[in-house]
Amino acid sequence: MRIDIITVVPDILKSPFQASIMKRSIDKGLVEVNLHNLRDYTDTNYKQVDDYQFGGGAGMVMMIEPIDKCISKLKSERDYDEIIYMTPDGNTLNQSIANQLSLKGNLIILCGHYKGVDQRVRDHFITKEISIGDYVLSGGELGALILCDAIIRLIPGVLGNETSALTDSFQDNLLAPPIYTRPAEYNGWKVPDVLTSGNFPKIETWREEQAYQRTKERRPDLLEE
Amino acid sequence: MRIDIITVVPDILKSPFQASIMKRSIDKGLVEVNLHNLRDYTDTNYKQVDDYQFGGGAGMVMMIEPIDKCISKLKSERDYDEIIYMTPDGNTLNQSIANQLSLKGNLIILCGHYKGVDQRVRDHFITKEISIGDYVLSGGELGALILCDAIIRLIPGVLGNETSALTDSFQDNLLAPPIYTRPAEYNGWKVPDVLTSGNFPKIETWREEQAYQRTKERRPDLLEE
Repeated sequence: MRIDIITVVPDILKSPFQASIMKRSIDKGLVEVNLHNLRDYTDTNYKQVDDYQFGGGAGMVMMIEPIDKCISKLKSERDYDEIIYMTPDGNTLNQSIANQLSLKGNLIILCGHYKGVDQRVRDHFITKEISIGDYVLSGGELGALILCDAIIRLIPGVLGNETSALTDSFQDNLLAPPIYTRPAEYNGWKVPDVLTSGNFPKIETWREEQAYQRTKERRPDLLEE
Repeated sequence: MRIDIITVVPDILKSPFQASIMKRSIDKGLVEVNLHNLRDYTDTNYKQVDDYQFGGGAGMVMMIEPIDKCISKLKSERDYDEIIYMTPDGNTLNQSIANQLSLKGNLIILCGHYKGVDQRVRDHFITKEISIGDYVLSGGELGALILCDAIIRLIPGVLGNETSALTDSFQDNLLAPPIYTRPAEYNGWKVPDVLTSGNFPKIETWREEQAYQRTKERRPDLLEE
């Protein structure tokens, strides 16, 4: 998989791709992530990428021309499955969207910053608009990180043990059951007896019950789907 | 505001706090963010912070002892308003939670990694569990970033123009209207006439209608609240 991220603040994105699972998947050649600085696609002396809103109002708007130039250059080099814009009014990311995108070959992710991009960018270049949740961030960069992480960990070979991702919350519309590790007692707080019983069918049943119970208490909406 | 982030991979978190709005708010002294490496709170030679699950199964679990030591040390130094654990089965972050947390003084954010933390940590130390959305990430670090960004931008003085945050999506249960900037025509694509009319009451009405229309089309659930 290849992911091209277009941003005005590529510096934000550096360290998360240089650590942990995202770094290892890049090092293994399972995914290639390229950061593109939108300021490299401007002609003006000031490397201007944003301007005031038509009609007035607080906040700057990202201009269409540099974005057009950057996307057009990338599209001239290869085909893309999706050109994604991160925006709070996009489709809310969920595990199913992450699963689908993890099967794609080439993705462009455009990060909004300031108030967002000129609407004509969205109308004419973007194929998918994604939100990571109902809250506002200072830019689309952190949203792009979330999207990349959610997708990349699903690519076969990225996680050491492939069963690990399948038992995560949301993969079966259930939250994960409680988990415990050593010591078996700490400060007088004990792990549930069943988990140290060695009776694996019983452990499996307990986990299923706990997962169902937790989902019912915390997220009954997931059970209705 | 002071935020203490507890993590096993502090490197992931570096660049996002060294750029853009989060950096500026730290430089201005409006927020202090401290990263704590959980490995500094282990006694073992191998700096062990995780161990196998009781009862078997894929994925490692973060141990209670280093987390207890780290949280206890921080709590001995000052009072905390909330000790937050980032987890996909927590309360889903929204703008209202972000608004509330932006008014707090001291926060601890514990990032899960691997399969998550020993349940006893959640039962005995955590005061609030937050999810950033219905998808699984490789760790809580990116979730912590999202939470910090959503909160920090709301602290008075962080955004240059304070009206800017108030006109964002979700602050009034409406998505933001379309925005445009120069040039007024690009590739034959024009900005709506009303925005270049100079008639500000009319522009205001158009924006309200567009915000309502977009919300109705994309997120009718927001209008029902």
